[in-house]
Amino acid sequence: MCSVISRVKPVQRALASTLRLRTNADGLNYAAAQSRRFCPGFITGAQPLWVTSRSYCARIATTDGLLFRQLFEVESSTYTYLLADADTKEAVIIDPVLETIDRDLKFVSELGLKLTVAVNTHCHADHITSTGPMKKRVPGLKSAISKLSGASADIHLTEGDKIPFGRHCLIVRETPGHTDGCITLVTGDQTMAFTGDALLIRGCGRTDFQQGCAKRLYKSVHEKIFTLPDECLLYPAHDYLGRMASSVGEERKFNPRLTKTMEEFADIMNNLNLPNPKKMATAVPANLVCGLQD
Amino acid sequence: MCSVISRVKPVQRALASTLRLRTNADGLNYAAAQSRRFCPGFITGAQPLWVTSRSYCARIATTDGLLFRQLFEVESSTYTYLLADADTKEAVIIDPVLETIDRDLKFVSELGLKLTVAVNTHCHADHITSTGPMKKRVPGLKSAISKLSGASADIHLTEGDKIPFGRHCLIVRETPGHTDGCITLVTGDQTMAFTGDALLIRGCGRTDFQQGCAKRLYKSVHEKIFTLPDECLLYPAHDYLGRMASSVGEERKFNPRLTKTMEEFADIMNNLNLPNPKKMATAVPANLVCGLQD
Repeated sequence: MCSVISRVKPVQRALASTLRLRTNADGLNYAAAQSRRFCPGFITGAQPLWVTSRSYCARIATTDGLLFRQLFEVESSTYTYLLADADTKEAVIIDPVLETIDRDLKFVSELGLKLTVAVNTHCHADHITSTGPMKKRVPGLKSAISKLSGASADIHLTEGDKIPFGRHCLIVRETPGHTDGCITLVTGDQTMAFTGDALLIRGCGRTDFQQGCAKRLYKSVHEKIFTLPDECLLYPAHDYLGRMASSVGEERKFNPRLTKTMEEFADIMNNLNLPNPKKMATAVPANLVCGLQD
Repeated sequence: MCSVISRVKPVQRALASTLRLRTNADGLNYAAAQSRRFCPGFITGAQPLWVTSRSYCARIATTDGLLFRQLFEVESSTYTYLLADADTKEAVIIDPVLETIDRDLKFVSELGLKLTVAVNTHCHADHITSTGPMKKRVPGLKSAISKLSGASADIHLTEGDKIPFGRHCLIVRETPGHTDGCITLVTGDQTMAFTGDALLIRGCGRTDFQQGCAKRLYKSVHEKIFTLPDECLLYPAHDYLGRMASSVGEERKFNPRLTKTMEEFADIMNNLNLPNPKKMATAVPANLVCGLQD
């Protein structure tokens, strides 16, 4: 596991090394929570009645001191996410879109945030990222994308890498299948995951171009996303029906494709016969260079 | 103050009477939080550094055991909200839209919720509510709207009324100005408020028809919404730029209209010269009868 902490800046390394995480468990006080370090797979918060319903319900995320905003770009139906430490104001933006750069940077400015990393969950085919133009307008901002995407960026992410922001962080899980370089970003306390196009609400990204592979996607979702706590809220890169979030428990139970067997899933995905995204011919080359291609 | 508890059903009355609310304060354990009853204006959670930034930052809502979903109807850019007690599964839906009734009821069904109240923040002019058709499909569901709206419904709400769902509740604040019957619904712990068209993100509802009055709206927002804690997250009935939430602190500081004086605000609002909503002629009469007019 290679941490990007060492590649970013010393202050983040120091903050990340003292990462404090609060559990969302009833009955646990803050002192007890503070005494814990991050522990992957550490799940709490299940009350007796909750246990019976946790396979298909999600509480609202309870990460303390996390500023979170979900934003929408209407033409490509893309969700952009802004996460920040409410105290230190260090912030990360996920999947920002060229058309909404002014809106997004206005939020950053008004909220007094210090945007340190702009990360793409993959090399998008349906819209052009704003990470490149954003770097020109935000001093010190680093772009990030997976190493396997083949795209240029300041930070190339691989499995297990951490993107720290204040006392919070996002941890990279490689979830290829829609593209080779797709990643899912999971908050340190595993209450939220940003799944890009790997897993959508009651759906998933297509697998018929850009190195897409249905069986690989199936394996990614089952091994890297469905293994998160059922209560973990899922935030995809897109939704086309006005839905904004789901949860691991819900998708494990109700996703119409990913509840099938791998063979059935591959059969569905290989027969979707979808037209290519309208902007594909311009978006992919541009996104390989942070959206800066003329 | 008249509580609708007495008008709904005994089990809700019992649950509401033992309403347990958890603060979002660091350092407060659950036992301590449990010992508190609801106390309007009771604000905690301000760490030293947070205090300095609370005027324009919002943490993620931390209400424990609350299931929350924001949904979007694209034609009218309307947000619908689904709130439920994660344990008892009692649920309330706010501003459901006719076109998305199937999507919304599918969520209710999949999440195993018992939808008890469908409430409109006002008599909408831009879309037809689904509360009437929803009542036909959900046994026992009650429709609710403010008494001052003049619309028919099972429950007519007035200032201070409570809509309980499990151990949670929504409390009514009358916020007229866009229409006479506009209400804002505030969660019992004041971490979230559903402002309808009274206050939008960096904007507000128009005041040029349906009994609209700019000065009345200004007074409503300043007296009934801006008096909530700065950290209280605000969820409007609409947004047209892909933004999904704001906070009291942010709007107090950055709302371009409501940070003006009342006179300046009235001058802006009285000179917007907007066309009427496309569906106004059909939506308003239909919404006066729960969306059931042929």
